[in-house]
Amino acid sequence: MSSEVYSRFIERVKELNTTRAVQALLEWDQETYMPPRAAQDRARQVALLAGLAHAQLTSDELGGLLEQLERQGVGDDWAAKTNLREIRREYERAVRLPRSLVEEIARTSTLARNAWVQARKESRFPGFAPHLEKLLELKRQAADLIGWQTERYDALLDEFEPGAQAARIQRIFDAVRSELVPLVAAISQARRQPDRSIRRRHCPRDAQEAFNRRIVAALGFSFEAGRIDVSAHPFCTGLSPCDVRLTTRYDEQYLPMALFGVLHECGHALYEQGLDAAHTWTPMAQSVSLGIHESQSRLWENQVGRSRAFWQHWFPQLQQTFPSLADVSLDAWVFVINTVEPSLIRVEADEVTYNLHIMLRFDLERQMLEGRIAVRDIPQAWNAGMQALLGITPPDDARGCLQDIHWSMGIFGYFPTYALGNLYAAQFFAAAQRALPDLEQQLARGEVGPLREWLRQNIHRHGKRYRADELVRLVTGQALSPQPFISYLHAKYRPLYGLDT
Amino acid sequence: MSSEVYSRFIERVKELNTTRAVQALLEWDQETYMPPRAAQDRARQVALLAGLAHAQLTSDELGGLLEQLERQGVGDDWAAKTNLREIRREYERAVRLPRSLVEEIARTSTLARNAWVQARKESRFPGFAPHLEKLLELKRQAADLIGWQTERYDALLDEFEPGAQAARIQRIFDAVRSELVPLVAAISQARRQPDRSIRRRHCPRDAQEAFNRRIVAALGFSFEAGRIDVSAHPFCTGLSPCDVRLTTRYDEQYLPMALFGVLHECGHALYEQGLDAAHTWTPMAQSVSLGIHESQSRLWENQVGRSRAFWQHWFPQLQQTFPSLADVSLDAWVFVINTVEPSLIRVEADEVTYNLHIMLRFDLERQMLEGRIAVRDIPQAWNAGMQALLGITPPDDARGCLQDIHWSMGIFGYFPTYALGNLYAAQFFAAAQRALPDLEQQLARGEVGPLREWLRQNIHRHGKRYRADELVRLVTGQALSPQPFISYLHAKYRPLYGLDT
Repeated sequence: MSSEVYSRFIERVKELNTTRAVQALLEWDQETYMPPRAAQDRARQVALLAGLAHAQLTSDELGGLLEQLERQGVGDDWAAKTNLREIRREYERAVRLPRSLVEEIARTSTLARNAWVQARKESRFPGFAPHLEKLLELKRQAADLIGWQTERYDALLDEFEPGAQAARIQRIFDAVRSELVPLVAAISQARRQPDRSIRRRHCPRDAQEAFNRRIVAALGFSFEAGRIDVSAHPFCTGLSPCDVRLTTRYDEQYLPMALFGVLHECGHALYEQGLDAAHTWTPMAQSVSLGIHESQSRLWENQVGRSRAFWQHWFPQLQQTFPSLADVSLDAWVFVINTVEPSLIRVEADEVTYNLHIMLRFDLERQMLEGRIAVRDIPQAWNAGMQALLGITPPDDARGCLQDIHWSMGIFGYFPTYALGNLYAAQFFAAAQRALPDLEQQLARGEVGPLREWLRQNIHRHGKRYRADELVRLVTGQALSPQPFISYLHAKYRPLYGLDT
Repeated sequence: MSSEVYSRFIERVKELNTTRAVQALLEWDQETYMPPRAAQDRARQVALLAGLAHAQLTSDELGGLLEQLERQGVGDDWAAKTNLREIRREYERAVRLPRSLVEEIARTSTLARNAWVQARKESRFPGFAPHLEKLLELKRQAADLIGWQTERYDALLDEFEPGAQAARIQRIFDAVRSELVPLVAAISQARRQPDRSIRRRHCPRDAQEAFNRRIVAALGFSFEAGRIDVSAHPFCTGLSPCDVRLTTRYDEQYLPMALFGVLHECGHALYEQGLDAAHTWTPMAQSVSLGIHESQSRLWENQVGRSRAFWQHWFPQLQQTFPSLADVSLDAWVFVINTVEPSLIRVEADEVTYNLHIMLRFDLERQMLEGRIAVRDIPQAWNAGMQALLGITPPDDARGCLQDIHWSMGIFGYFPTYALGNLYAAQFFAAAQRALPDLEQQLARGEVGPLREWLRQNIHRHGKRYRADELVRLVTGQALSPQPFISYLHAKYRPLYGLDT
């Protein structure tokens, strides 16, 4: 009996996630191949599927099956337990929000997004402010309906990082900040600096494309179960473990954009392709959280992709592919791809300054949500924060508080997952180094198989079996800590910039 | 009141056709970019949307709205009348088939398709025969449930060519056949023959791609509202008038494949882009029938694309693009692109022999459906038919009765629409020539605007307002007739092959 009920439950769950996979394809197509005039029609298609997914998730049938299964239990089957727990969580989040509120948030963010585009173009925050105000009010309502214990922000954060709590993140961020701010200042004043012009050498697009394909294939990305395309804003989307698509963009005068962009997205893709296909379209074949997802992209992009060991193997091939780099030494290359400099735009920030950008947003979001800061004061608070954290002040709002799209889409609680990703990455990589004492030598020989398989076994294949917290403990032997990230930065950047000499 | 009910009706209709547009995207992606390992997951996605579309079409709500609108009427609004008539037609076809039968047909054709692939590979018809037998039995049941007046075949034909009747098609085909068979024989024996080697000259793929893009842009295809991609089997799909995608395939040693393939699909695409976007996702922005659709592709491919006038303008540019054609004369080019030769494979047939391939299939389908021929006798009947019509006999079933996929998918009544397309095309083009007395000179100057606009005004913009029959009368002043096609062939091929000298 239980097994028959469970089968019906899983059938409904698979339908729900099949619908979402189709939605993901619509969005992928929109960013890659859709003809421009189709934009309005596409919005209608996306809305139809979003409505369908919502109806599937909140259906009485699914609710009834959840109840029935919870009453009778699913025994010791941890896959069933995981699926039940995660769908209950999604179901609760969905049914607590009345349709009218969901629709009002959707309508308001459509207007807000248009206003943001215009405001950013004109670099005039007041044009966006009333929309942000309204969105905040709606999101406060949503957070209260969803429910929270310590603070309202947690209800929103939970959508992207299940189980995370703002207060705990705050403590970790504080520890990171107190190390980062002086480190960034020291680096800025260091006498040794990389030759930044190396990044600007001409590299033909076709050769970039071929090289990137070679490198991700070597990392273990399967082109039988995935693709690489071009889009204005790089991303990775997994329709299923058998269909994982990443995108990039090319600049012939700035090789690192596509190269490290692809390494980053490939990290996401390896996670998606490493999920257990036997559980496709159930939580058991879904990523833990955005933070854990980001840890996989950052680990391959930074811990691996910006390491000297990695380039010992790949740099000769890079030079062969791009004759413009023929006279560059391995040391100069490793130095320039690890350039640290305070900058205005988050998405262009290096791995040392990046988290400071996030901390500023995290602070402001929490204050906004609690009404501890007036929306009209955001620009001033932003600029003061940038000055305090990075020692620079944006010349205008476009390069300041208007730079990111998230708030205009009503997304609050998302930014911290980027920084969590950096912390998880460092902590996972340190555990991998302990488990694979030969790791650095392996990377220097171009052998990435052991690291990838270690990630697969320890992280990817579990799907949502463990929450982020539990997974980190299980894999690294301790709770999330700022220490591995801080140690990693010091160990890497102090010698690079000659800070201890 | 009426208008509020009608709005609700149209909202449901748009949802239905939005779902189908998403299905079309899934299918387009499957043929163009989908990674190979995603095939099984994709089948699930397609099935989900097919089920959703079926539920939307057969919902009690839509049924109730149809009844209500029919009771109260929609006044003189011909758009509303058209939408009401066409959705009623679709609704009836759908609700008359019980779910169990639809599912059994789906299951049976999945097996049949696999069996057909294998049978064709081994060129062994008996491996496919039992599946064909079962499919025929199910399609007989379906036809009887849908209902028919003169003969059962009409119920199936009606799916693709609403309102068409086999008996009438038969009479028209008979008239065409009695002209074609002797014409083909005369051409085969003609002393003048084209230099076929011209078609085999090397033409680089990139140059083909660029030239094809230039030519379809000149014909009026909008890349703002469409794309060209590559697939194994060329097709054109319209998600909406703002999103029309065609595909082609390239052979560097056979220029005509992509060139005329793209002209053909571009004809389909101009129809889709020419539909009235104000009516997107309602029957008023849908094509009349497969036959009318095919007329648009054939008109641009053959009446325009294989005419001397067209190449007077384009041939110098073709020669500039492909140096391997530098020594070819315009006459030799026009002759070779109009090569006529009896051949075994329908999809490779020229415009003179093509309809004979169709007539053979039409005859056999009707006999099979009525049980007037045993399935086991198909190969023999096929080969006898090929001999009688084209004077050649297939050396095996793979190049005979197993060549097409249609029957294995349970599709009967589709083939005749290809031939109807050829007939409609000739009749429409003759009407265009009367309306645009300067047409030939225009084409010779590279001016295709007047012809395209004539097609838009007379055919495309009407959507499903008129049934095929009515449309043909309206546009050409008479019912569908074999005569324009026959006259077109004689006028073109007799001088080319020197038959009257």
